[in-house]
Amino acid sequence: MHAGLLGKLSATLRCLPGVGPKSAQRMMLHLLQRDRAGAEKLAHTLLEALQKVGHCQMCRTLTENGICNICQSSERDPSLLCIVESPSEMMAISGSTVYQGLFFVLNGKLSPLDGIGPKELGIPMLETRLASGKITEIILATNTTVEGEATAHYLGELAQKMGIRTTRLAYGMPYGGEIEYVDGVTLAHAFNLRKVI
Amino acid sequence: MHAGLLGKLSATLRCLPGVGPKSAQRMMLHLLQRDRAGAEKLAHTLLEALQKVGHCQMCRTLTENGICNICQSSERDPSLLCIVESPSEMMAISGSTVYQGLFFVLNGKLSPLDGIGPKELGIPMLETRLASGKITEIILATNTTVEGEATAHYLGELAQKMGIRTTRLAYGMPYGGEIEYVDGVTLAHAFNLRKVI
Repeated sequence: MHAGLLGKLSATLRCLPGVGPKSAQRMMLHLLQRDRAGAEKLAHTLLEALQKVGHCQMCRTLTENGICNICQSSERDPSLLCIVESPSEMMAISGSTVYQGLFFVLNGKLSPLDGIGPKELGIPMLETRLASGKITEIILATNTTVEGEATAHYLGELAQKMGIRTTRLAYGMPYGGEIEYVDGVTLAHAFNLRKVI
Repeated sequence: MHAGLLGKLSATLRCLPGVGPKSAQRMMLHLLQRDRAGAEKLAHTLLEALQKVGHCQMCRTLTENGICNICQSSERDPSLLCIVESPSEMMAISGSTVYQGLFFVLNGKLSPLDGIGPKELGIPMLETRLASGKITEIILATNTTVEGEATAHYLGELAQKMGIRTTRLAYGMPYGGEIEYVDGVTLAHAFNLRKVI
């Protein structure tokens, strides 16, 4: 739509998730017309983050330190290990305060067709960690998608071979959810796993 | 929510319009996990645009050249001048191809309480341009808000003093609009300005 640098900036802003051509144009005009200081700070922070942020050597989450704050913390229970697909899920769980153990981030899920096997998910690293004997329970918190379930199944077998207690997050109705709007599979799980009160 | 550089990047992404804390976190994770090349390009393009993009010396729109492509074009009618509030409106009008004249961008609207008077809107520059005698009609395409109307009124008086034909975009029903959903003021205008067919 625009030529030159304005067009290039609009196009580049579309690398952001959920940003289409209209939003990109709006962002470009906002930054150049009203918030040049913010734009400059954004550019420099992005470059700094790209340079410094890598993966934690213990749990593979994103961090600017070699080992992330959670893995370094002495206040967390080192015998519990929660396995998630991505840093955003780790953030959601660590933000909810219900869980005070450690994490392991797969940064993906098993997907042989896309060439994503155990090695790409850091599973050799996880095995070494499980073999150290410090972990007494792993909690499988992969998503409830086909690949998430397959990944959980694979990890479950691995941990059970090593004699480590393995749990999976509970299925059921989301709290505050209305039955009318809950999907069929969730409802089926909620029925099958119903509890005596 | 996050400490360190990740938190700083999340916070900085919120300078983008329409981006709240959740979207900012999603953008941060996407850039760092999945699109580092895009993020780097974005940062460099931002810096380049901040350095090179300024306002056109003729029409005050955003451009990386001293004079923008539209003002430089020999294919546009130099006797027509359309006055808009911002570059995005100029882009919308020049994109619709109905208008083939030149533009003048106020980069704001008269708002004495906020200290925005004629000088801030480049009106002395506009007066010089109108006095040159090359322009035979100005089209007031400011928004139909209170300040937009006040700005149009001010500019209309100015042009009429100089004997230049002054027009304002037509009010009425938007094409394809359903009467049921059109607001009362628009409907009142559409009735008052109704035409014999």
